[in-house]
Amino acid sequence: MIGRLNHVAIAVPDLEAATATYRDVLGAKVSDPVPQPAHGVTVVFVELPNTKIELLHPLGEKSPIQGFLDKNASGGIHHVCYEVDDIVAARDKLKTEGMRVLGDGEPKIGAHDKPVLFLHPKDFNGTLVELEQA
Amino acid sequence: MIGRLNHVAIAVPDLEAATATYRDVLGAKVSDPVPQPAHGVTVVFVELPNTKIELLHPLGEKSPIQGFLDKNASGGIHHVCYEVDDIVAARDKLKTEGMRVLGDGEPKIGAHDKPVLFLHPKDFNGTLVELEQA
Repeated sequence: MIGRLNHVAIAVPDLEAATATYRDVLGAKVSDPVPQPAHGVTVVFVELPNTKIELLHPLGEKSPIQGFLDKNASGGIHHVCYEVDDIVAARDKLKTEGMRVLGDGEPKIGAHDKPVLFLHPKDFNGTLVELEQA
Repeated sequence: MIGRLNHVAIAVPDLEAATATYRDVLGAKVSDPVPQPAHGVTVVFVELPNTKIELLHPLGEKSPIQGFLDKNASGGIHHVCYEVDDIVAARDKLKTEGMRVLGDGEPKIGAHDKPVLFLHPKDFNGTLVELEQA
């Protein structure tokens, strides 16, 4: 069912410093910061040859990553995102297997303008998993 | 400097259950468990089209991931591994930039029989980073 690893998302307390680390110290290609008000984050995309790292920083007052940064002041890996061909079929299969889909269980339009779902970390070895329709 | 994302490592408290989740629920291709006594882990490789997920379970009494599981009972993402062309050149550049290399700073032979180094999570947004010579 799952295909490519679309990205690894890392929540960071200082977006400029994190971008500099990836660009200047690790020598990776990074994007400009992309504000995504609908998702409560500003994102810098780190382009690797086979996948992306997404550096996430809170934007606005209801950012979904603020609580994570409150608990992890230095930042940390927030989630991994796997691609699926058909997100509704994937959702139905996961529910049949007893896995918990976060929210109301309906795919939302995610940060890449594609349908996404998030899965409960307790069902996936403490890992927040995003599924994105490829 | 950094190239491909070689793998994302997830520490898991129950290797059989985690393998079943990735194989049967997420429908991914998984390996048999590979004991790596020299590294204190048993690993199941989850093969994705563009990278790998490595499910790590403690092996032996001095496993480097036991402490992580003691703090994170459900498991969690333990580290990310980036490939570099020349690990000694990478190490020297990182030290020049003030980044902390774990251990004695000398590359060790890692789980894929290639030289690896680990970098201090506090210098990389709370993320334990492994570098592996490609």
